[in-house]
Amino acid sequence: MLSFENDYSRAAHPAILDALARINDNLYPGYGSDPICESAKCKIRTACGKPDADVWFLVGGTQTNQVVIDAITPAYAGVVTVSSGHPNVHEAGAIEYSGHKVLTLPHHDGKMDADELDEYCATFYADDNHEHMVFPGCVYVSISTEYGTMYTKAELERLAEVAHRYDMPLFVDGARLGYGLTATGCDVTLPELADICDVFYIGGTKVGAMFGEAVVFTKRNTPKHFLTIIKQHGALLAKGFLLGVQFDTLFTDDLYFRIARNANEQADRIRKALRDKGYTLTFDAPTNQIFITLDQSTIDRLEQHVRLGFMEKADDTHTVMRICTSWATTDEETDALIALL
Amino acid sequence: MLSFENDYSRAAHPAILDALARINDNLYPGYGSDPICESAKCKIRTACGKPDADVWFLVGGTQTNQVVIDAITPAYAGVVTVSSGHPNVHEAGAIEYSGHKVLTLPHHDGKMDADELDEYCATFYADDNHEHMVFPGCVYVSISTEYGTMYTKAELERLAEVAHRYDMPLFVDGARLGYGLTATGCDVTLPELADICDVFYIGGTKVGAMFGEAVVFTKRNTPKHFLTIIKQHGALLAKGFLLGVQFDTLFTDDLYFRIARNANEQADRIRKALRDKGYTLTFDAPTNQIFITLDQSTIDRLEQHVRLGFMEKADDTHTVMRICTSWATTDEETDALIALL
Amino acid sequence: MLSFENDYSRAAHPAILDALARINDNLYPGYGSDPICESAKCKIRTACGKPDADVWFLVGGTQTNQVVIDAITPAYAGVVTVSSGHPNVHEAGAIEYSGHKVLTLPHHDGKMDADELDEYCATFYADDNHEHMVFPGCVYVSISTEYGTMYTKAELERLAEVAHRYDMPLFVDGARLGYGLTATGCDVTLPELADICDVFYIGGTKVGAMFGEAVVFTKRNTPKHFLTIIKQHGALLAKGFLLGVQFDTLFTDDLYFRIARNANEQADRIRKALRDKGYTLTFDAPTNQIFITLDQSTIDRLEQHVRLGFMEKADDTHTVMRICTSWATTDEETDALIALL
Amino acid sequence: MLSFENDYSRAAHPAILDALARINDNLYPGYGSDPICESAKCKIRTACGKPDADVWFLVGGTQTNQVVIDAITPAYAGVVTVSSGHPNVHEAGAIEYSGHKVLTLPHHDGKMDADELDEYCATFYADDNHEHMVFPGCVYVSISTEYGTMYTKAELERLAEVAHRYDMPLFVDGARLGYGLTATGCDVTLPELADICDVFYIGGTKVGAMFGEAVVFTKRNTPKHFLTIIKQHGALLAKGFLLGVQFDTLFTDDLYFRIARNANEQADRIRKALRDKGYTLTFDAPTNQIFITLDQSTIDRLEQHVRLGFMEKADDTHTVMRICTSWATTDEETDALIALL
Repeated sequence: MLSFENDYSRAAHPAILDALARINDNLYPGYGSDPICESAKCKIRTACGKPDADVWFLVGGTQTNQVVIDAITPAYAGVVTVSSGHPNVHEAGAIEYSGHKVLTLPHHDGKMDADELDEYCATFYADDNHEHMVFPGCVYVSISTEYGTMYTKAELERLAEVAHRYDMPLFVDGARLGYGLTATGCDVTLPELADICDVFYIGGTKVGAMFGEAVVFTKRNTPKHFLTIIKQHGALLAKGFLLGVQFDTLFTDDLYFRIARNANEQADRIRKALRDKGYTLTFDAPTNQIFITLDQSTIDRLEQHVRLGFMEKADDTHTVMRICTSWATTDEETDALIALL
Repeated sequence: MLSFENDYSRAAHPAILDALARINDNLYPGYGSDPICESAKCKIRTACGKPDADVWFLVGGTQTNQVVIDAITPAYAGVVTVSSGHPNVHEAGAIEYSGHKVLTLPHHDGKMDADELDEYCATFYADDNHEHMVFPGCVYVSISTEYGTMYTKAELERLAEVAHRYDMPLFVDGARLGYGLTATGCDVTLPELADICDVFYIGGTKVGAMFGEAVVFTKRNTPKHFLTIIKQHGALLAKGFLLGVQFDTLFTDDLYFRIARNANEQADRIRKALRDKGYTLTFDAPTNQIFITLDQSTIDRLEQHVRLGFMEKADDTHTVMRICTSWATTDEETDALIALL
Repeated sequence: MLSFENDYSRAAHPAILDALARINDNLYPGYGSDPICESAKCKIRTACGKPDADVWFLVGGTQTNQVVIDAITPAYAGVVTVSSGHPNVHEAGAIEYSGHKVLTLPHHDGKMDADELDEYCATFYADDNHEHMVFPGCVYVSISTEYGTMYTKAELERLAEVAHRYDMPLFVDGARLGYGLTATGCDVTLPELADICDVFYIGGTKVGAMFGEAVVFTKRNTPKHFLTIIKQHGALLAKGFLLGVQFDTLFTDDLYFRIARNANEQADRIRKALRDKGYTLTFDAPTNQIFITLDQSTIDRLEQHVRLGFMEKADDTHTVMRICTSWATTDEETDALIALL
Repeated sequence: MLSFENDYSRAAHPAILDALARINDNLYPGYGSDPICESAKCKIRTACGKPDADVWFLVGGTQTNQVVIDAITPAYAGVVTVSSGHPNVHEAGAIEYSGHKVLTLPHHDGKMDADELDEYCATFYADDNHEHMVFPGCVYVSISTEYGTMYTKAELERLAEVAHRYDMPLFVDGARLGYGLTATGCDVTLPELADICDVFYIGGTKVGAMFGEAVVFTKRNTPKHFLTIIKQHGALLAKGFLLGVQFDTLFTDDLYFRIARNANEQADRIRKALRDKGYTLTFDAPTNQIFITLDQSTIDRLEQHVRLGFMEKADDTHTVMRICTSWATTDEETDALIALL
């Protein structure tokens, strides 16, 4: 059965399994203090155009959001996200578990608006009672967003400008960073992103790795004793070299972005077919996630042959479904899906 | 200068200071294990018509909300409130500090709608991914609400019914319980409230006491080792008898409700004057808080003579202000305010 | 029945109730932003000889320990105390509840040894794995200690020197500060203490107040947005002026230290009588707490006439009991106790 | 260079990489809801002789300790461990981060004594003030211990009996379970362990897997909504099938215990050689960790050829070092080490 259910349903890109096999007779010290991690970090720094960026490897996305947000947000403050943001909706309260409120702004196709952020903060500080409220302490956005949409470079710059004006770091969740940065029409590069934001991560789990998210602090701004903070959150992988070998592979010969681009190309083909066949796309998104609003009979017909993702009920008779391509999606799979539409 | 700024600006009802003076030569054991606390608890149980209710005394409102919500909400769950609810807005993240997300519903003049609660929960449990989300774990409402409005008995029963159907206790913040239950048109009594909800508190801080909130568990449902939980939150008063003597006084000869009623009567007079003079009341509320939307020149004029509470900007030229009466408001003060309007 | 059970069994010094009665017709703004709090803070600054000290009022001791330790200790760090320290033993885990480990050193009659602190830290930082462990983040000691003993000025200076060398603030719990600083033989004054440590508090609950602890940050080192942190912990008293009026009274005409001295003088008389009658004192302590090891028949005899505090079983037939005088202990009570011994 | 530094320095047993390669073209649903996880769970249930055991896969040891302890320990309670226990020393405060105190007993070569546990609890509950203290809420021991020692079946049964008498579950950290259960002289089997304790885990990270710990609830006692709790702690692996495939491989043809036994056999040979050559072993331990106290010149000599683990300074001139074998240690490596001794 065909599956376009999500982008984390295959173990890993074969090059990663190969690399793993190659190092399997070696012995490495633990917790990331090994030469492969160092090599991977160098390659990431180079890709970011930031020789002094500080790179850390964590295992998964919710974990990374929890650890980073907790580490960069003052105890008396919360994280500002859009209402559809992953930490607000799909992390089982991991942020609140770490003691911080998630402060929400409306989303616009999954995106945060810098003016609304500005107004939120201005209103907060203008309130005589704001010391009885939760301070906005950092800004969280994701690339790409929950709905597959992308920020422009100007939008990101504006978000950073507002965030910094209110003394907040801008944190970019890059669980799907590869798909975002290689999307048709994307006008921001990895080095530019590294310049704009204060900390971001390069998602491996959804882009070719078995698991792993590479956190990059871009401005000599790593929280003090970050390793201890990671450990305290139960997030320090004993065999850190497993993370190193995966990112070392992904950042060799541009593999990370090459395979990410594949997902977008397959998605572009599917989007074209959908439009040609008269489907209405729920969002105007250029990345590997395509949302379409379907009636139940169409869903029933499609689901006999292909697994799709459920998004939400649109109304009594329609449902928003997700078609998700991945680094591993083949032309044949895409052809087969298009034939079904 | 006249002040209708809030209901916690005077130390205490004179009867409380008298009672305090009377016991000041006595020696009591600590932490609430004293005969005055026991006497106060008995009187509260009697007032509630619940001989087996379990009564605890805490110091303040935010503290009580934090301790009770944390104690009755499973670790994996959050508390459902309306967006305007005190724990969501004005408690500096005290709930999130204790690890729980505040899950919000829209408010209707400060009130939660039982149907919306039902739909929220139904949608939650219908979502295939709900185990990745924060479970609704308890329901928080306040009497009266942040906007001075009141639930009817039927509304509370319906909220309790929905809450219980989804395995949630209903918790009523009664920081202003006295003002709520004695409001004109209120159709719920203290014993009825005790029947309907699972835990509530009788606010002393804003109704005659120096400080103190009496938490009542109504259904033999006190969380195990609640004293330890209170202590763990830093909320156990060493001289618990100070809380006892205040509530013992307030629940002697119906003092609590008598002085609460005074606030409502003064507010009723002010409301009538406001309507007579053509002011528009922001909310249709029967308790001691009156919200009015004023232009700046009216505010400037009034504030030369009376302190009011700031609520929020209504638009560029108007502001919502609060007139707040209290148990201590005198006829003369009310007359003076009305003359100013 | 006579009681030497503890020092928080009477409501308050009469001067405090008088002051309260005097202000009871006044209206004050909330949360400590009132002129009485400001007056009290001024008097405390003067008493400390620190015109720029920052003073805050909290309600109780465990609460203050939790709020201050949480606010001054990095997230990745713990608080160093002696094993007998209040936060380690008798606060129901309030420190761990706020996320910090309590790191313990052995106690010496309740006191921390600066050399042992030094060695602990040196060993910690020498450990290759220390980033996997809990950093020592602040140092907590109390004046007087759990066993009524006192630090000398030289000992405090040495503790501060070691603490600062390892980048830790020194926090002094002064729940019984009055009894400590007025003890026979005490060689440290309030201004000296304020010079030595980074933050301390002046305990009101056990020294004449109904409740209240005055936290003093001595080095322009108040944690950012400390009011919000207090509120977030549920520790911000609505009627802050109640704290202000108590400390204003206690720091007028040296009342705080005068009444504290009374407790020590009564204790000195009891100690002399105990020694004269051949009792063995468990600790050589000069403050208002006297610990004696008694056999059961003596306990039974005494407890017919006087309430004492239970400390711990010494062995199968002996028990350590506490005689605790207070600011309110009268000559007559002391005479009566001595007659019983 | 030879390395006996630890048991997590190689990626994985080749059979695991083979299994991974075999499934790499398959697509699986996320978060452990896949057929390989189900297969692995079945095999583990069978190995435990507990058809109704509930099995969960987490990534690492500290994470597992944090999640399980937090989930099974009441909010007002702590976890009882020995002072040398991993959560007390080497988890950067992960337990306290989750709000629980670590309550410590003395260790005996790394082990907890059931009588001391009993006395601790009896003393706790006998204390009049125990409601102001942290309740013992669960018991944590590890197999094998931090010093490589093992509990006998009788010792475990006695610990469980005491724990249950005080209403505490017994939790066994099995990060090195394989090495413990296959040690020479071990008299407890996996099914017996599953009978005795309430929850334990089967460590993969140190016994052949890339990563992964299989948590087994043995008595239909899984905490409610445990998946959500895992997610809330940031501990839910997106590609859960990666955990499934590893444990499925390890529990096929007894691989887990076969490779664990290899480590013990190599360690037995090294222990014999150490004793023959007159070294003194620090602990009498039968598992894969050998601790020896060495003078500096011996350390210097050895470290030219082999990496050992540092344990702690024994005195000014001696150091306790660790020789750690693993599932992957070869006869040749052991021969080479013995030749160096």
